[in-house]
Amino acid sequence: MLLCAPMPKLDFWYEFASTYSYLSAMRVEDLAREAGVEVRWRPFLLGPLLKRQGWTTSPFVEQKEKGRYMIRDMERICEARDLAFQMPEPFPQNGLYAARAALIGEDEGWAGRFSRLVFTEQFTGAMQLDDKTALGTCLTAIGLDGDALLARAEDAEIKQRLRTQTGDAQALGLFGAPTFLTEDNEMFWGDDRLEQAIAWAINK
Amino acid sequence: MLLCAPMPKLDFWYEFASTYSYLSAMRVEDLAREAGVEVRWRPFLLGPLLKRQGWTTSPFVEQKEKGRYMIRDMERICEARDLAFQMPEPFPQNGLYAARAALIGEDEGWAGRFSRLVFTEQFTGAMQLDDKTALGTCLTAIGLDGDALLARAEDAEIKQRLRTQTGDAQALGLFGAPTFLTEDNEMFWGDDRLEQAIAWAINK
Repeated sequence: MLLCAPMPKLDFWYEFASTYSYLSAMRVEDLAREAGVEVRWRPFLLGPLLKRQGWTTSPFVEQKEKGRYMIRDMERICEARDLAFQMPEPFPQNGLYAARAALIGEDEGWAGRFSRLVFTEQFTGAMQLDDKTALGTCLTAIGLDGDALLARAEDAEIKQRLRTQTGDAQALGLFGAPTFLTEDNEMFWGDDRLEQAIAWAINK
Repeated sequence: MLLCAPMPKLDFWYEFASTYSYLSAMRVEDLAREAGVEVRWRPFLLGPLLKRQGWTTSPFVEQKEKGRYMIRDMERICEARDLAFQMPEPFPQNGLYAARAALIGEDEGWAGRFSRLVFTEQFTGAMQLDDKTALGTCLTAIGLDGDALLARAEDAEIKQRLRTQTGDAQALGLFGAPTFLTEDNEMFWGDDRLEQAIAWAINK
C-alpha cells in the first residue's frame, strides 16, 4: 500500500531588491526538494512595510555601519557559496515590475526560475532591476513570451494583486525579507533561518 | 621540536540587556576552546550606539513585529539548546552596573563566569539587571568579594573605562550586539555568525 501524504509547504516571502533574499532564492528550491518540501514563491514589496515601521529607505542605507557590514557579510557568504555578488548601484533598486511579473509566474509555476535569473542579473551588475527591457530578456531566456508577459504585468488586476500580496505580508506580521512561513504559521526571518524553517515544515 | 604559536584571539562584544548576546555568552567559550581560540570579553553599552543611529530604545521595542518575532526566535533557539528563557520585564533592562563590574572581570579573568551567571539570572526572570544586590550575589556565587567589587565598580576610573570601551565599539563600527571581531578586524554580527567568526579567527 502506498501512503500518499501531501508534501508540506513552505511560503518563501521575498523582495527583489533585498540582498539576503538573493541568497535564499538561490538555494531554497534545492534544500526544499531534498527535504520533500514544496516552496511557494511569494514576491512582495518591502518598502511599504518599512515605511510603516518609520523607515523611508532600506535600514542598510539609513544605518551606515549596518549597511557597510551587510556588504562584507554578503561578500563572505557569496564567496563560500560560490555565488557572484556585486552591490547594485543605486541601492536599493526598485522591485515593482519584477514583483508584478513574478506574481504571474506564481500562478504558472515559473516564479522560481524567473526570480533566480533576475536576482543573479541584478546582483552581478548586469541589469537595473526596474529595466523592463532587461526583465523581458529574462522572461525570454527561460522560454516565455517576454513582451506578452510584461504587458500582462501592467494589467490592473496584477497591480492590485501585488498590493493585496503586500498587504497580506503586513497582516502576517512580516517586517523584513526573506521570511519563511510554514503551514502552521511559524515564522522564520532571514536566510540564516532557512534550514530551521524547512526542518519545522517537515516535523510539524 | 614544539611550535608554540600564540592562540588566535576573538573579541566578543556584548551588551547585558541583549537577548542574542545571552545566546552567545552561553556558548562562545566552549566553541572557542574546542577551536583553540582565546575569547576576550568586551562588555559595552549598546544604548549610546543605538541613539546615534536614531533609536531611542531597542529596535525590538520600536518595531513591534520584529520584537514579537525575536521572542519566538529566542524561544525556539533556547529550546533547541536546552537553555531557559523568559523575557525580562521591562525590556530592555539597564546593563550599566553589570557592564562596569564585568570590566573589572575583564582584567582579572572572571568576566566570562560572571557574565554567564548574570545573563542566566536575567533571562530566567530571577533578577532585574540593574539590581546591585543581585549583582553582588552573582559575584559572591563565583567566589568573589561582591561588596568590594561593587564598590570598585563605582570608581570614577571604571565609569570612564566603560565610556571609553563604548566609544571604542562605536569607533570600530559596531551597530549591534553580539559582535565578534577577529584580530585582523573582520566583523561578524549576531549569534548566527559565531561559528563563522571562529573559523575566520583560526584560518587567518
